[in-house]
Amino acid sequence: MNTQEHRALAALLAPDIQELLKRSPESIAAETEEIHAADLADIVEALPRESVLALLQALPADRAADVLEYLSDDLRTEVLEEMSAPQAARLVAEMTPDDRADALEELEEETYEDILSEIPQPAREETERLLAYDPETAGGLMTTEFVSVPEDTTVEAALAGVRRIARAGRREAMHAIYATDEHGALKGVLSLRELLAAAEGAKIRDIAWEEVVSVPPTADRAEVVSLTSNYDLVALPVVDENQRILGVVTVDDVMDAMVEEHTEDVQKFGGMEALDEPYLQIGFSAMIRKRVVWLVALFVGQMLTTSAMQQFQSQLTQALMLTLFIPLIISSGGNSGSQATSLIIRAMALGEVTLADWWRIARRELPLGLALGAVLGVLGVLRIVLWQQLGLWDYGDHYLLVALTVGTTLIGVVAFGSLAGSMLPFLLSRAGLDPASASAPLVATLVDVTGLTIYFSVALFLLSGILL
Amino acid sequence: MNTQEHRALAALLAPDIQELLKRSPESIAAETEEIHAADLADIVEALPRESVLALLQALPADRAADVLEYLSDDLRTEVLEEMSAPQAARLVAEMTPDDRADALEELEEETYEDILSEIPQPAREETERLLAYDPETAGGLMTTEFVSVPEDTTVEAALAGVRRIARAGRREAMHAIYATDEHGALKGVLSLRELLAAAEGAKIRDIAWEEVVSVPPTADRAEVVSLTSNYDLVALPVVDENQRILGVVTVDDVMDAMVEEHTEDVQKFGGMEALDEPYLQIGFSAMIRKRVVWLVALFVGQMLTTSAMQQFQSQLTQALMLTLFIPLIISSGGNSGSQATSLIIRAMALGEVTLADWWRIARRELPLGLALGAVLGVLGVLRIVLWQQLGLWDYGDHYLLVALTVGTTLIGVVAFGSLAGSMLPFLLSRAGLDPASASAPLVATLVDVTGLTIYFSVALFLLSGILL
Repeated sequence: MNTQEHRALAALLAPDIQELLKRSPESIAAETEEIHAADLADIVEALPRESVLALLQALPADRAADVLEYLSDDLRTEVLEEMSAPQAARLVAEMTPDDRADALEELEEETYEDILSEIPQPAREETERLLAYDPETAGGLMTTEFVSVPEDTTVEAALAGVRRIARAGRREAMHAIYATDEHGALKGVLSLRELLAAAEGAKIRDIAWEEVVSVPPTADRAEVVSLTSNYDLVALPVVDENQRILGVVTVDDVMDAMVEEHTEDVQKFGGMEALDEPYLQIGFSAMIRKRVVWLVALFVGQMLTTSAMQQFQSQLTQALMLTLFIPLIISSGGNSGSQATSLIIRAMALGEVTLADWWRIARRELPLGLALGAVLGVLGVLRIVLWQQLGLWDYGDHYLLVALTVGTTLIGVVAFGSLAGSMLPFLLSRAGLDPASASAPLVATLVDVTGLTIYFSVALFLLSGILL
Repeated sequence: MNTQEHRALAALLAPDIQELLKRSPESIAAETEEIHAADLADIVEALPRESVLALLQALPADRAADVLEYLSDDLRTEVLEEMSAPQAARLVAEMTPDDRADALEELEEETYEDILSEIPQPAREETERLLAYDPETAGGLMTTEFVSVPEDTTVEAALAGVRRIARAGRREAMHAIYATDEHGALKGVLSLRELLAAAEGAKIRDIAWEEVVSVPPTADRAEVVSLTSNYDLVALPVVDENQRILGVVTVDDVMDAMVEEHTEDVQKFGGMEALDEPYLQIGFSAMIRKRVVWLVALFVGQMLTTSAMQQFQSQLTQALMLTLFIPLIISSGGNSGSQATSLIIRAMALGEVTLADWWRIARRELPLGLALGAVLGVLGVLRIVLWQQLGLWDYGDHYLLVALTVGTTLIGVVAFGSLAGSMLPFLLSRAGLDPASASAPLVATLVDVTGLTIYFSVALFLLSGILL
């Protein structure tokens, strides 16, 4: 089933669930037992609001907590705010520490305090510690329930311990098992599979991998994503300055982070601030705010094109036909710039290209831009000559010179576009900004102003004394 | 350590490794044993080419295969082509089936046949089967070595079986264990953790989850990514029409697919064909080809702006100052369009918005565009009035009417840009194309032509009999 089919199924099942709600909590729990929590969450999203609370209260607390984790932020917040604080606390306490922190973070200050105060002491403190981390760092992504064993434990003892934890139905992540020394410092890592494969009598120290990839809690989300994906990890440990494990980021949260990063990157490249909610859930005025800032900034920058044209107004009066090609020329520069920027942003994000490579890239993009510009230049010349020869438009006696002006300008503008577009992410990165802020509209705006200047300079040079 | 520090470390270690290469294969293997294969691959990338082969041959075959998996496609291809076919086959045979297929796919037809013929029969057939799938589908991503047990197996027997496989050092993915019925059809799934937690004497049927998310081998890469991430899976089974398991896609390959999808999306949105290699590795002429097609297509489309301006040339002659605002106006339309497109592309990719939502989005983007356009319109009017009042430029006696023309046009152009930009992904999707092909430059080009027509129409209406 794909996502859309799942949605459709959820909508179909919703009436059955409403029917089901008339029955005892036990039978509701039994009937829905085999449905994946993600699917049950989809069904819940399709239910009328008054049934949502009824269903969640009929489910066992751990199951309801699972469903809550998969709900959209908006509905989860709504549900938790509608419940009494003890009710909400009962569910929230069953969530994994990282999901609990994420859920509470979205609530109103007051509701959040009320619910938190109903959660038992150790879980409460842990949640408060997690909430102190920036949600876009390793600390904000990690869960604090994981399995670690002293490195001198025997394989049998470790296996028995793991079994005990698993049988108790506890929430510890078991993507990997960590070995620690007598100070609690991280010394090794092994998988459940490696634990099962180990010879009896061996010590954990003998079988664990000593080189463990780890991050500090302050590590950026992008860093967590890149390490997890480069090393094919299923969990990344987060350690303090003494190498003691604070928590682990599990691969499912890394994937969520990847999806969010991707969305933000595309929105930023489109020339706006990244949204923090789904498109259909964000309000009208919030949407205006996210978009207007960049639109206005670009508009103000673009005003320079008007100034540039004013400088050349006397030439324009003499050779009005030059204005006909302005949109064509500046957009070609913007398009080549947009291509170059998108390439470099991704190459930088993937670590293929670093700040030190700027000169190498510049030497590559300039000839590329000249070649691409030459292709468009030839097309531009052909267009003018063809229209003139076919009698579609009259560009005057000097149409060949006009064509030459347009063609030469295109080479210059596309070369400049490619160069400027490829250098902009480096400049932003050098200035300590996110290179992904180099949006297509920003590049286009930069290139437009220069493109006009190139155009009029070429025209002055080629047409001076003839048309100008 | 972050990625750049790893690179730096790799470059530092490379000379040590060259020193090491003078010693026996045994001591080379022992000295590098604890280095993660991904790091060893980074070191290999920094080595002079002649040492690469020496190092790989000194390592045990399974270890060398691990390193090969992490090498860049280019270097891996180079290494495999330099080796004799039996040498290469020895390493390739040790790779997991999916990585083996990926590695062979990159080779020249002839080398590939030679190596394949040296691989033992069952592995060869399996590789050929995998190579038959499109690499961007579930079949192309899956590995064929996984663990499945009949559903009436007891927990003890299953655990013993898993242990046997793990101890034999075989390559089976153990992210999940699948339960099958007597016809081999997929009936359930459980994790190693659940197997360990199970009560003794239980049957696999009793503890496995019955609702298993699975895909056919033809499922698109994007589908695999979205299911894995929505259901928080670590492995996704691929089944034939009889629900028999053909293979599993593991989460590390899903993450790689996510990164590739992201790169392609950004490049397409930048207005070019997606590259299939890293920026620095693609050749000059291949790069030209990837970029020139869209540049030319956009250029030809953009020629319509010249035609549009030609229609209004007599008006332009009478009111030349109108040309001063052309770049400002059309770029504002393009920018708002680029914003709207980036939003809708991502919302569609995330399943937040489907084809059926087009009318809902249109009714949302039009008022948004009008509001955003009004903001820019006011700024445009202010700019003209201010310059006139401050004596920076003379827009003539009717400068207020000119300002009104520019302001009104901006409202229309930005509203049209937002609407067109948001509808373009729907149109492409309706036509069976990838909505992510709606690039920023494509939207800008569409909006430019209409923007000019709006501008001149507003001018004709407001200035007719006065300036025109």
